[in-house]
Amino acid sequence: MIETSHIAERSNRVRRRFDNIEALLVTDLSNIRWLTGFTGSNGWALLTPDEVVLITDGRYGEQARSQMSGAGVDGRVIVGLSGAAMLDSLAAETARFGRFGFESAHVSFQQYQRFTTALHTELVPVGGAVEAERRVKDGGEIARMAEACRIADAALADVLTSTPPEGRTEAEVRNELEIRMREFGASGPSYETIVATGPVNAARPHHRPTDTVIEAGHTLIIDVGALYDGYHSDMTRTFFIGDPTSLQQELYEVVLEAQKAGVAAVESGLSTAELDAVCRTAITDAGYGEWFSHGTGHGVGLLIHEDPFINSTGDLKLQVGDVVTVEPGVYREGFGGIRVEDLVVVTESGCRVLTASPKDSPCPPSPPTT
Amino acid sequence: MIETSHIAERSNRVRRRFDNIEALLVTDLSNIRWLTGFTGSNGWALLTPDEVVLITDGRYGEQARSQMSGAGVDGRVIVGLSGAAMLDSLAAETARFGRFGFESAHVSFQQYQRFTTALHTELVPVGGAVEAERRVKDGGEIARMAEACRIADAALADVLTSTPPEGRTEAEVRNELEIRMREFGASGPSYETIVATGPVNAARPHHRPTDTVIEAGHTLIIDVGALYDGYHSDMTRTFFIGDPTSLQQELYEVVLEAQKAGVAAVESGLSTAELDAVCRTAITDAGYGEWFSHGTGHGVGLLIHEDPFINSTGDLKLQVGDVVTVEPGVYREGFGGIRVEDLVVVTESGCRVLTASPKDSPCPPSPPTT
Repeated sequence: MIETSHIAERSNRVRRRFDNIEALLVTDLSNIRWLTGFTGSNGWALLTPDEVVLITDGRYGEQARSQMSGAGVDGRVIVGLSGAAMLDSLAAETARFGRFGFESAHVSFQQYQRFTTALHTELVPVGGAVEAERRVKDGGEIARMAEACRIADAALADVLTSTPPEGRTEAEVRNELEIRMREFGASGPSYETIVATGPVNAARPHHRPTDTVIEAGHTLIIDVGALYDGYHSDMTRTFFIGDPTSLQQELYEVVLEAQKAGVAAVESGLSTAELDAVCRTAITDAGYGEWFSHGTGHGVGLLIHEDPFINSTGDLKLQVGDVVTVEPGVYREGFGGIRVEDLVVVTESGCRVLTASPKDSPCPPSPPTT
Repeated sequence: MIETSHIAERSNRVRRRFDNIEALLVTDLSNIRWLTGFTGSNGWALLTPDEVVLITDGRYGEQARSQMSGAGVDGRVIVGLSGAAMLDSLAAETARFGRFGFESAHVSFQQYQRFTTALHTELVPVGGAVEAERRVKDGGEIARMAEACRIADAALADVLTSTPPEGRTEAEVRNELEIRMREFGASGPSYETIVATGPVNAARPHHRPTDTVIEAGHTLIIDVGALYDGYHSDMTRTFFIGDPTSLQQELYEVVLEAQKAGVAAVESGLSTAELDAVCRTAITDAGYGEWFSHGTGHGVGLLIHEDPFINSTGDLKLQVGDVVTVEPGVYREGFGGIRVEDLVVVTESGCRVLTASPKDSPCPPSPPTT
């Protein structure tokens, strides 16, 4: 039994951030889910001082009522049978406020224009109020992400040990990973699983698997995560097919040491730019800084990519409860690529690594001992 | 071999819609893919009078160049190693224009504020210029969607005939459908497959599968589509588990006749509200109008839900090349639900139905004869 998440407490965490607004209109679906438990694909949550008003369409009325009451959230559900009816309801519910906030990162310019036309209340752009609380995970959320990691670890071990990857296609390995994750309890993959091999495909950090055959002499990057009860995991391992070249061996050690240094550095109070610099400096000092063409990591939760983003320009500080990836890599067309990635949760004493697949040797792992 | 899509021709289709702008900044990723072939998760495409300038981050430089040249698109790729660097590149590329358009439905209010601060050119909100062209599918796109339909048809037939659904859980049936679609050539499910049964779950049009066991006496709604080379399919069938009650039988016939009437009505020039009314009137006349709690359908393509949306307030007219769902349904907690959905392409002479699973009898189908 997975630990309970305390959804009903979250509204007050966000209300304490209200600054010069009387209510907050939450339009981002992940933020709505986090605040209310509602998992539908259309809705607005109006966070007032004393309740949450969820406005959705006719597909979701019953579901919204059930999910909100199941989460213990004080609130009401209003069903509008068209977009215009939903807007009318929003106008009625906001009329009593002098001004209310809207999520400026999640309302399009077009929607903003519609709101200003239809609503008779001043709208105040608010940036990231829910995200600032949502990035700090509670025990129930961390338990879900740990379970997602366990599923992906088990799937990777199962796929690599049941059939050696050499001679198979990227897409075949991807399919097996996604099937195993489902069998092991995932509701789906956390993102489109990356299986990338060879001098071209593996040089693309976000390669989409193809019918390219996995061949001796190449590196093989597998970036795989599971979705469990709405929460994501994220992990990358790189393997050698056949005996590694000296450059492959050298670069694997460079990336692995950079990644371990990054994990070792994670602690509350460290800035995201400082964490990025730990990994980047290690790779740059080895002479391959230009091959590390992306940021060091990102937060993970209800989204696979969320705050805090860890890159050279990041100015957030890590907090206890942040769940982030540490994933340096090197890429060069003609060579291919290498990436090693773990998912970690920031704790009082540093961090706890949630992903458990072996990484010290870039060969197909034995099944995890868990 | 699937028919080729003519990506390079699309830029000029959009340029012909330029109205009082010198260039258009395309920020929606589906629109970028449709215009350039680029499938990465981050980028901006600046459509100028004579080329497409694609600005992306360090993960995607090689991929973007390869995909654009593969599609025969005249253009350049600029890589910015941070969001700030991408914005600098955009400022440099737009400086020569007096004013350019941006996609007001796909730029957040926050991003709009950043653009106005960083760019020294007047920004003009443009609504749906790319979507207005993208909704009309070419032969290559229709061929991909037909293949996606074929895969989902085959998966549904295979799953229902290999093991009767009674006694299995919604999640088990969902998993098998998604596995079969992969085996039959899909790159994944088109959306989270819906398997919904019983008096509560089937009453929710967008139910997410659970461990609820499929039992005699209930209806079973399966809403399943495949993703094939970026294009989606969408189909729903409803089954009786065991002998139907008289109400189940009556409602199935009501929904089926409404759905068939909708498909028969589809033709170029019909408004989306008129099409919605065909299905809605049939169900209302039978006395169950309040049980039909959603619109009649939506466009499908690179997105599972896109223009044209078919509901009572829709004011678009169907065009040859539109690919839309026709999917009336009835839902009531305590009863459950029934929905029948096909995907059709509007043709010169009416429409062609792309989904082929049997629907005349709500029992598990025989394998399709294709």
